[in-house]
Amino acid sequence: MKSLAPLSGLRIIEGSAFVAAPLGGLTLAQLGADVIRFDQINGGLDFRRWPVTENNESLFWIGLNRGKRSVEIDMRSARGREIISDLITAPGRDGGIFLTNLPMKDELRYEALKEKRPDLIMVSLTGNYDGSSEVDYTVHPAFGYPLITGSAGTELPVNAVLPTWDLLLGNMVAIAILVAERKRRETGEGEFIQIALSDVALSVVGALGRLSQAYVGTEKVSADGNFLYGAFGSNFVTKDNVQIMIVGLTPRQWSALKDALQIHDALSKIEIECNANLNLESDRYRFRREIAELVADMIKEKSISELNEVFSTFNVSWSKYQTFEELLKNDYRASVRNPIFSLVNQQGIGYLPSVSSPIRFTNATNLGAQSAPVLGANTKEILVELLSMSSSEIQNLKEKGIINK
Amino acid sequence: MKSLAPLSGLRIIEGSAFVAAPLGGLTLAQLGADVIRFDQINGGLDFRRWPVTENNESLFWIGLNRGKRSVEIDMRSARGREIISDLITAPGRDGGIFLTNLPMKDELRYEALKEKRPDLIMVSLTGNYDGSSEVDYTVHPAFGYPLITGSAGTELPVNAVLPTWDLLLGNMVAIAILVAERKRRETGEGEFIQIALSDVALSVVGALGRLSQAYVGTEKVSADGNFLYGAFGSNFVTKDNVQIMIVGLTPRQWSALKDALQIHDALSKIEIECNANLNLESDRYRFRREIAELVADMIKEKSISELNEVFSTFNVSWSKYQTFEELLKNDYRASVRNPIFSLVNQQGIGYLPSVSSPIRFTNATNLGAQSAPVLGANTKEILVELLSMSSSEIQNLKEKGIINK
Repeated sequence: MKSLAPLSGLRIIEGSAFVAAPLGGLTLAQLGADVIRFDQINGGLDFRRWPVTENNESLFWIGLNRGKRSVEIDMRSARGREIISDLITAPGRDGGIFLTNLPMKDELRYEALKEKRPDLIMVSLTGNYDGSSEVDYTVHPAFGYPLITGSAGTELPVNAVLPTWDLLLGNMVAIAILVAERKRRETGEGEFIQIALSDVALSVVGALGRLSQAYVGTEKVSADGNFLYGAFGSNFVTKDNVQIMIVGLTPRQWSALKDALQIHDALSKIEIECNANLNLESDRYRFRREIAELVADMIKEKSISELNEVFSTFNVSWSKYQTFEELLKNDYRASVRNPIFSLVNQQGIGYLPSVSSPIRFTNATNLGAQSAPVLGANTKEILVELLSMSSSEIQNLKEKGIINK
Repeated sequence: MKSLAPLSGLRIIEGSAFVAAPLGGLTLAQLGADVIRFDQINGGLDFRRWPVTENNESLFWIGLNRGKRSVEIDMRSARGREIISDLITAPGRDGGIFLTNLPMKDELRYEALKEKRPDLIMVSLTGNYDGSSEVDYTVHPAFGYPLITGSAGTELPVNAVLPTWDLLLGNMVAIAILVAERKRRETGEGEFIQIALSDVALSVVGALGRLSQAYVGTEKVSADGNFLYGAFGSNFVTKDNVQIMIVGLTPRQWSALKDALQIHDALSKIEIECNANLNLESDRYRFRREIAELVADMIKEKSISELNEVFSTFNVSWSKYQTFEELLKNDYRASVRNPIFSLVNQQGIGYLPSVSSPIRFTNATNLGAQSAPVLGANTKEILVELLSMSSSEIQNLKEKGIINK
């Protein structure tokens, strides 16, 4: 028999909006944690965030809140904040964890919460390390990548559509909670943790060597189309007008490409003309345009089905470009053949493609994808379960508009 | 007195290349774990990965391996693999954790390792869930974003330069290890964990609602320049030719922008002409071009220093676009004013800008940025420390070329 989902029992209270904090909670919920999200009555800042359905239901909100429970409560009122504070500090070894990226005041500040539960773990997200505010869309321009994205020769910025820094911060949130909770089990000590969105960007720009590169100043980097940096890779168009990406990063990938396209002789010619050794990834990068020209000539003579066959035979590293629609329609990885993909009924909307955690355990249970809660669906149940509230107390809160009807 | 770094004592053996697995190890090392990376003699696949210095030292490898220890060992030999296996399965409650994204054979397969240490935690990274191979550069084209990046009206793909899926997988690795180790402490049970790169992409495309959007089919998405999706935000050029991004996503940000530029009347005109309510983010998105035209006319009349002043006064959400060089030269967040940034001496190269974990604890010690090990610098020390090898055994291994000299 399998054991429970790995984080079964762990309880996190989440007061959040947009991507990072909700994703942190989602990541833990997908692994079995009981994540309780609280929102302002009628929903917070992100409750109608696009993409939306025709009825203005947010597919974004649903996507980021699967498997959580929802409390709908007026956090502008002192009584509302007091109740949230009680939820956060409710007893239990696996409780006392609070995740937020919203400004929290009075009863919901760390100092106040810690008075009630000294071993509290609180993760607070900010824009910059000094507490000033920032969103993914303002961090992105400042951290170099938009100016080296897009066609070579242009100096116009090209923004990423994916909110990468927010996504990475979301994962950091999950890491921070797990690390602090591990320490609490050892020492009994709580933690106040801060993570800044721009610090996540800084750490990545550092880890990938881009800060060092700028500091050492050996190389001026600029936009370079779809070429892979530092080795060989680019996009090509087939005879039947399909866009594909081909990669020759590792020695194995490079050999496979040469064998599949039979370009050994033509490459030797480039090596002689350019005084290059294309077995070195650095030379494949230096002479990427020469290689690409050669490869492009071959690819434009073949249909996608011809290429599919020869590339499969030689195990070439490549991919078609796909829209989200094509991904969903044609790709086996975004189908029920993939154990983490399923269609889940979302109340009020119907079935939606839903993805569970990409982390697959062998001994512990892997949870399937869950639906998102209807806003406020769990308010009453949670007030009873965690705070043992009576029906009349709950009725009273409803009448005062402090919780949803 | 502060307690130790939060993961102090935890030991992870890492056999890895490129971004995801090394980043997973880095993330844990930055929080105090003892991460021991083993590499083939003279370095593995990523040892010369760009960016590099003039002497062909990889700033990428350094960036991703800070704070780790390095064992240089011939894993093609059975004796080399046996030693690695001994390191992985060495006793200790906080050991027995193995992270890899390389194909592991014979002594280094999970089944063989588990024989020696039944509570082993092993995290194995693959391209796709079925074990087939993939790199960030081939996952990226298949998962929709390149076809909605870049100028409106084009159907040409624009690749991200940042290996986003690899980075997110790297964080997932850290999460998986922490979750499995937490469970092991409770149950004594080990784990074999698999994570596929394309599953990480799938989970994000799912979480952000893009799969549901494609499934519901209410809206055709396409490349849209630098407009922020679903609310207002775009890039603009100042009078003195500086590229900036301005965001009006939340009600507060939208008010700030209106107040700073004094565009209330002009916006009211748009609202009447378009029958819109620009207080709704959906309408700000629908009429983004009209708003952008208006804003662009204002921005091109002002210099960056004028804008800086008025935007600060009104707390507008905005940013300049910066190259990596400008980030390092001009931005206080990438300077020693930021507690996670420092200059660290890297043996053989000199001082390099170095970043520590973006997760900042209050009670536990936050480690400063570390240098990366010289390849093989810790081989001997680790063989003595973990396996109690004698000097003559080590000498013998050197002579046989199984470990570095």
